[in-house]
Amino acid sequence: MSKLTIDLNADLGESYGNYTIGNDAEIIPLISSANVACGFHASDPAVMIETVKRIKESGSTGLGAHPGFPDLMGFGRRYMELSETEVHAIMLYQLSALDGIARTYGLDMNHVKPHGALYNATFKNEDLAHVIAKAVKDFNPDLKLMGLANNNLVKAGKTLGLDVINEVFADRAYEDDGTLVSRSKEGAMITDSTLATERVVRMITEGKVESINGKDVDIQADSICVHGDGEKALEFVKEIRRQIEEKGISIETL
Amino acid sequence: MSKLTIDLNADLGESYGNYTIGNDAEIIPLISSANVACGFHASDPAVMIETVKRIKESGSTGLGAHPGFPDLMGFGRRYMELSETEVHAIMLYQLSALDGIARTYGLDMNHVKPHGALYNATFKNEDLAHVIAKAVKDFNPDLKLMGLANNNLVKAGKTLGLDVINEVFADRAYEDDGTLVSRSKEGAMITDSTLATERVVRMITEGKVESINGKDVDIQADSICVHGDGEKALEFVKEIRRQIEEKGISIETL
Amino acid sequence: MSKLTIDLNADLGESYGNYTIGNDAEIIPLISSANVACGFHASDPAVMIETVKRIKESGSTGLGAHPGFPDLMGFGRRYMELSETEVHAIMLYQLSALDGIARTYGLDMNHVKPHGALYNATFKNEDLAHVIAKAVKDFNPDLKLMGLANNNLVKAGKTLGLDVINEVFADRAYEDDGTLVSRSKEGAMITDSTLATERVVRMITEGKVESINGKDVDIQADSICVHGDGEKALEFVKEIRRQIEEKGISIETL
Amino acid sequence: MSKLTIDLNADLGESYGNYTIGNDAEIIPLISSANVACGFHASDPAVMIETVKRIKESGSTGLGAHPGFPDLMGFGRRYMELSETEVHAIMLYQLSALDGIARTYGLDMNHVKPHGALYNATFKNEDLAHVIAKAVKDFNPDLKLMGLANNNLVKAGKTLGLDVINEVFADRAYEDDGTLVSRSKEGAMITDSTLATERVVRMITEGKVESINGKDVDIQADSICVHGDGEKALEFVKEIRRQIEEKGISIETL
Repeated sequence: MSKLTIDLNADLGESYGNYTIGNDAEIIPLISSANVACGFHASDPAVMIETVKRIKESGSTGLGAHPGFPDLMGFGRRYMELSETEVHAIMLYQLSALDGIARTYGLDMNHVKPHGALYNATFKNEDLAHVIAKAVKDFNPDLKLMGLANNNLVKAGKTLGLDVINEVFADRAYEDDGTLVSRSKEGAMITDSTLATERVVRMITEGKVESINGKDVDIQADSICVHGDGEKALEFVKEIRRQIEEKGISIETL
Repeated sequence: MSKLTIDLNADLGESYGNYTIGNDAEIIPLISSANVACGFHASDPAVMIETVKRIKESGSTGLGAHPGFPDLMGFGRRYMELSETEVHAIMLYQLSALDGIARTYGLDMNHVKPHGALYNATFKNEDLAHVIAKAVKDFNPDLKLMGLANNNLVKAGKTLGLDVINEVFADRAYEDDGTLVSRSKEGAMITDSTLATERVVRMITEGKVESINGKDVDIQADSICVHGDGEKALEFVKEIRRQIEEKGISIETL
Repeated sequence: MSKLTIDLNADLGESYGNYTIGNDAEIIPLISSANVACGFHASDPAVMIETVKRIKESGSTGLGAHPGFPDLMGFGRRYMELSETEVHAIMLYQLSALDGIARTYGLDMNHVKPHGALYNATFKNEDLAHVIAKAVKDFNPDLKLMGLANNNLVKAGKTLGLDVINEVFADRAYEDDGTLVSRSKEGAMITDSTLATERVVRMITEGKVESINGKDVDIQADSICVHGDGEKALEFVKEIRRQIEEKGISIETL
Repeated sequence: MSKLTIDLNADLGESYGNYTIGNDAEIIPLISSANVACGFHASDPAVMIETVKRIKESGSTGLGAHPGFPDLMGFGRRYMELSETEVHAIMLYQLSALDGIARTYGLDMNHVKPHGALYNATFKNEDLAHVIAKAVKDFNPDLKLMGLANNNLVKAGKTLGLDVINEVFADRAYEDDGTLVSRSKEGAMITDSTLATERVVRMITEGKVESINGKDVDIQADSICVHGDGEKALEFVKEIRRQIEEKGISIETL
C-alpha cells in the first residue's frame, strides 16, 4: 500500500520596503511549498532576496512563484482587465525575476501559483487560465502549475502538458461545482480547526468534500492552502499538521 | 596585422504602456549592442518582450541589460541614495527579469550597462561601482560589464574577474581625468559628426582623446555609445558607421 | 431666438516624466474645455503645473479634472474592480491634487470627467456612476459632472443636484440605446469629418443621432469630445470648429 | 507671567493598502500636531481620508501635511536628487491632495513638515529649504512651516514671511551646530525618558540644549517630535506629556 502524502502551501514574502506583513520565519518550517510574491502585488527586490534565502535555509520547503496583478495599492486583490498579451507579459516578467534571484542563491523554482484576483478570476475565465498556463510553459515547462482543485487553471495546465497541483482550502466552504463559497456569504469560512482537518483528511483519503449544500463533491487534494498571518493562523497550521500526520499522512513538497 | 573592431551600443526598449520613446526598429540594425531597460526607470513587461523579439530578429545585435533606479517619473536620471543591499537587490531583480524573458525567446544576455544616474554616480563612487559589479558577478559571471572607459565600473569589474567593456562617447567632451564634461558646461556636446567621428577613430586607433582643455588623455575604446532618439540622431549614427567602416574598422558585438 | 452654443472638450496633460504625449499647445486654443489628467493614469506634478499654466494663458478654455484608475502602465484604460470606498477615495485625491495646483496658479476648476475605463464602466454600472458623482459633490457641489449623454453618470449627477454636461462623440457610432458602439465592431468609428460634423450639428440642433442600425436616437449634446493626438486629429478638430461656426453655433465653455 | 506652552507632533497616516503601520488611534489623542503622509512616500487616498477623519474626531490635534519624495519602496528615506522645479511640483501636489481631502471632511491644514530625506536634506542645502518654503507660500501663505530648530527650513520660511515652527527632538542628541547627531554615531539616541524630558524642559524654559560634546547650544523649541510606532514609543510619549505638564507647561497646537 502506497503511503499517502499531501503538500501544505502558504503565500509569503509579502513585505514591502518599510512595510512588514506575515510571519515568514515561523510559517516556513511548517509548510512544504512557499508561494513567493514577485514585486507586483507585494514584495520588493530586497524582500525577495531575503525570502529566497530563508526558504533555502529551511532546506525542505519548495519554492514557488506567486505572480499577481500590477497593483500594490490593492495587494493584487482587485481584478484588472488585462489583455492576454499583458497577462502573458506580467507572468513572464515575474517568473523571470524570482527565478533569477532564486538561482543566484542556489535555489530552483518548483511551482507557480497565481495570486489573489489573478487566481480567482480563472474560476470563471478559461481563456485567462489558458494564457497563465501558457506563460508558465513558455518560461519553463518543468514548473508545476498550482490552481483550484479540478478547476480551469489545472485543466489548462494539463492540456498544455504541465504537471499540475490541485489546491484545496482547509478553511473555506465549497459550492456544489467545487468552487469556493464567496467570502461574503454566510458559512464561507471554516473556523473550527478540528472540522477543517476532518474535511481535509477526507479530501486526501476519499477525494470528496461536502459542499455548503450538503452534497458530496469530487475533489482532488494535492496541496492544502494555509495562512501565516497572525498567531491564530500559525496555531491553525500546527493543529492541521499534527492531525494530518496522526492519520499517517506525510507532508511533502510535490 | 589584426583587424580593428569596435562595438556600437545604444539604449532602447524605453517605451512604457501607452508612452512611446525612441526609434527601436530603426536603431537596432545600426548598432551591435542594445542596452535594454528592465522596467524600473523605463519599460514594462510587454515592451521588454517586444524589444527582445526585435533584437532576436535582428540576428546580429548583442543583448544587454540596462538596469536603473526605481524611478519611472525621473526616468532613472535622478540620483537616489540607496544602501548597498538595495543596489545589489535592484540589480539582481532587473537582470533576472530581462534574462528570463530573453531566454524564453531564445536569446542570451551578453552584457550589462547601468542606466542614467546609476551609471553616472559610479564616476565618483567606487563602492557603488563595486556593488554593481558584484551583483553582475553573483547573477552570472559570464556577463560583460560596460562602464565609462578607464573609470570605476570597469575597474570594479576587472577586480572581480568580469570581462569589461570600456565605453566612449562620440558626442561628448572629456575632462583631463577622462570623465565626461557635465552637460551643463559649454562645449560639453560634440555636435559636428565629422569631428565626432575623427575623435572616435583616434580613440580606437591611438587610444587617445583630446580633453576640453586641449590635453591628450589615454582612453580605451571598446564600445561607442550612440543615441536613437530623433531623425537627427539616426543620421548621426549612420554617418559615424560609414566613416568608421571607411577607415577599415569593423563594427562588431564584443 | 436664443443663440445655439456647444462646448468642445479634449483630454490633455497626459505626458509623464520623460514621456511626452499629445499636442497640448496646439489643441488648447481649439477647445473650450480641457480634461486634465491628475497623476494616476497619466501626468505627474510638474506636468500638471505646466498644463494648468497653459490653460490659464489660453484665457478661454475651462479647466476640468480627468481622474482615472491608478494604473499608469495601462493608461487607465483597463477596468479595475475597486470598492466604492476606493473609487470615492481616488476621486477625492485626484480632484484635490488638481484643484490645489490650479488655485495656486489662479485658476478654478469648472468640471470633472472620469477617464478611460472609469468612464466607460459607468455605462453599465449605476452604482459606480453614483459613487463618482457623490465624490464630486462631496468635494465641491459647484463642479459640473461630464458624462456620456443621457447615460448613468449624468443621471447620477442630476439626482445629486449637480450641474451635468452631456458629452457626445463626433467620431463614434451609437447603439440604439445611446451608448457607444464598441471600437472592436465594424463601423464604430466615423472617419469622415464632413459626416462627423453633420451628425454633431444634428445632435445640437435636433437632439437626435442616427444609430448604427439606422434608428433615430434622442441625444442631448452639451459638449463634443475631440482628440488632440496627431496632426490628423488636429485637422479634424479645426474642420469641425469651422463647420459648426458656419452653422451659426457658437463654441463656448459651459 | 505668560504661561509656557509646547506643541507635540508625530508622523502618522503612513499605512498603505493592505499594509498597516503605526498606532494612529492611540497616538492622536496624545499629540497636538499630526504630520500626515500624502501618498508619495506612504499612504494612499483611502488611508488619507481615514486619517483626516480620525484627526477631525480628536477635536484638538492640528492637521499638517507631511510631503515626501516619490519613493514608496524607500518610505521617502532615500535622498533623491530632484530639480528645484520638481521639488516645488511634488510639494504642491501633495499639499493640494491633503488639503482638498481635509476640507471635504471639514478640516483645515495648519502646518507643513517635510518627511524623511526631504527634511534631512535641508540641513545642508539652503536652496532646497528655500524651494520647499516657496511651495508652501505659493500654496497658502497662512500655513506654518515646521523645520529643524534654528536651521535652514525655518530660516527660509521666515525670509519668505511664513510663520515657522522650530522642531526639537526629545530622543536625539545634538551636535554643537544644533543639527542632529547622525543615527549611525554612538550616543545619537536618548533612550532614558527622564533624561529626554529634562532636556526638553530645558529647551522650552531656557532655550538651551547640551550637545553631544558637552557644549550648551541655543535652541528654540516650538514643537517636540515624538513617535507612535510600538508600545514602548507610546509609553515614552505618555511619560513626556506627564512630566511636561507637571512643570506647568501646557501642550497645545501652535
